[in-house]
Amino acid sequence: MKKNKLTKLVTKIFINHGLNKNHAIICAAALVNAELVGAPSHGLSRLKMYCERIKKNLINPKPKIKIKKISQSITHIDAKNSIGFIAADIGMKEAIKNAKKTGFGLVGIKNSGHYGLSGYYAEQAVKKNLTTLVFTNAPPAIAPHGALKTLFGTNPICFGTPTDSKIPFILDSSVSMINRGKIRFAARTGKKIPPGVALDKFGNPTTDAKKALRGVQLPIASFRGSGFAWMVDILSGVFTGGNHGGKVKDPFDDFSGPQNIGHLFIVMKSNIFVGNYSERIKENIKRIKKLPKIKGIKEILYPGQNKFRRYKKNYNKNIHISEDVKKDIDSLIS
Amino acid sequence: MKKNKLTKLVTKIFINHGLNKNHAIICAAALVNAELVGAPSHGLSRLKMYCERIKKNLINPKPKIKIKKISQSITHIDAKNSIGFIAADIGMKEAIKNAKKTGFGLVGIKNSGHYGLSGYYAEQAVKKNLTTLVFTNAPPAIAPHGALKTLFGTNPICFGTPTDSKIPFILDSSVSMINRGKIRFAARTGKKIPPGVALDKFGNPTTDAKKALRGVQLPIASFRGSGFAWMVDILSGVFTGGNHGGKVKDPFDDFSGPQNIGHLFIVMKSNIFVGNYSERIKENIKRIKKLPKIKGIKEILYPGQNKFRRYKKNYNKNIHISEDVKKDIDSLIS
Repeated sequence: MKKNKLTKLVTKIFINHGLNKNHAIICAAALVNAELVGAPSHGLSRLKMYCERIKKNLINPKPKIKIKKISQSITHIDAKNSIGFIAADIGMKEAIKNAKKTGFGLVGIKNSGHYGLSGYYAEQAVKKNLTTLVFTNAPPAIAPHGALKTLFGTNPICFGTPTDSKIPFILDSSVSMINRGKIRFAARTGKKIPPGVALDKFGNPTTDAKKALRGVQLPIASFRGSGFAWMVDILSGVFTGGNHGGKVKDPFDDFSGPQNIGHLFIVMKSNIFVGNYSERIKENIKRIKKLPKIKGIKEILYPGQNKFRRYKKNYNKNIHISEDVKKDIDSLIS
Repeated sequence: MKKNKLTKLVTKIFINHGLNKNHAIICAAALVNAELVGAPSHGLSRLKMYCERIKKNLINPKPKIKIKKISQSITHIDAKNSIGFIAADIGMKEAIKNAKKTGFGLVGIKNSGHYGLSGYYAEQAVKKNLTTLVFTNAPPAIAPHGALKTLFGTNPICFGTPTDSKIPFILDSSVSMINRGKIRFAARTGKKIPPGVALDKFGNPTTDAKKALRGVQLPIASFRGSGFAWMVDILSGVFTGGNHGGKVKDPFDDFSGPQNIGHLFIVMKSNIFVGNYSERIKENIKRIKKLPKIKGIKEILYPGQNKFRRYKKNYNKNIHISEDVKKDIDSLIS
């Protein structure tokens, strides 16, 4: 389906579900962007879920979002169970404004929901020539080191900075070894999963996808990844007033209450300490790209480059819509 | 050797090498602390190296450190080739002061050197009930993803926050799979190294320690760890005015110039967004510790707990000094 047609359809669906036009456009743009950058798991496959949570009063389509200015640099936002996209959009705009004014912006958000890709918000800051760290927690997906039960979300660490080219440096990395979707797919098709990504329900390593689904997923790099996930849970949950410690509800499965996710945005003027930031980052990337490469590697890519290429490639093409998503859209538009 | 006697000896050595008494005490305390927390690789084994760099005019024992206040929250420090301990100590104190005053402190430091353990500085902020992120880059140790040459340092990501107990939450995690020292030890003793931690000089995976030493070490979690290392290089090097992109010199091997390492300290009031931070973090840790455990695991520990236990255990004991270090001290004191 053509990008513009799809965006209009999704916008209309959100308006039908009670969002005002401006908010509906922001949400539709975020979902379509996820398709364009090749992250369909964060795209239209979630549309129905968002609408269901609105219908069940777990997302407020017309939230009275409270923006509390603590200083010219620091803002606390109570998103009042807004859909995550709107809370994050407002929060990042506020952080950008603060950073432009004072060199630095810190925004904590509570009572929000899943907002899609962290990198999408980091990009907004980078487009204004700012450097940013973005943290959000997520529903339980991986086990803390030593535990036999999932508790931390995939809790991404996200960092963005301008590069003196039109392709921003956007690192947006979850701290889980493997996507839960991939394990589900392997279980359905009878395939094995790689070693070292999951334990069975007794805590033994397994490559059996079905056993892994009943067990736990592992963080990257053992205790180190567990520590990173814990850090993100504290920064985005404990620190902001959001849910934490395994209390963020799964948006697909758990309709017992709102998610109350927290987000933390740190935004800094890239040239706050050095006048020639763009020259310096250009030189940094140049040096690394020039290194001798492993056989079979044509180019050393910086984080965000692959995603940008997918975006560019997909931009003028029709967006592929699966049968499931087609059905979702048909049922939601009527 | 008794802790106090050792600290006095090391202080005297630094004074003999031109540091003023106050600076010498700070440096000695950092080195002895590394021994107490069980990180001797960052302790006295480095004393001789620091002294050699002073003698060769690569570290300035009496630096005229320039502290440039950009705002009440933001400070830029030119450490003028100070020994890393002093630059970091001044920088963290400044970041703490800024955070106490405005809720938030951002300090960038350039022209510094190796400062030991990031967690040591994070602890200083946590003791004042603040939450902190600490970044520093380091000499080349690991290869960027796809490259056949080391460039990034072990580039730790460090995060600290108070816990409502006397044991702070201090995550201080390098992004390399294995310590270079461990590979050197395996090569000397003819032992294998674990799979997945290094490549030989042709870019093939190897468990042969000697081949690994001629090849490259790998970051944690493949492209993800490479991205984290790159992020830290940008934040602490490109952003602050420090060296970056593989230009930080190895302090042991390379006497062709000062290191010019950069550090970045982000410090925030823990209760800036929520009034009950200490209750919230207590609840967070409690929930995670209560999870069912993998067989053989007695307790789920948060980052920093193990280190604190080692510190407590070692505090009243004699510090073990290796023959090499004894020789270093004898030659430096005379």
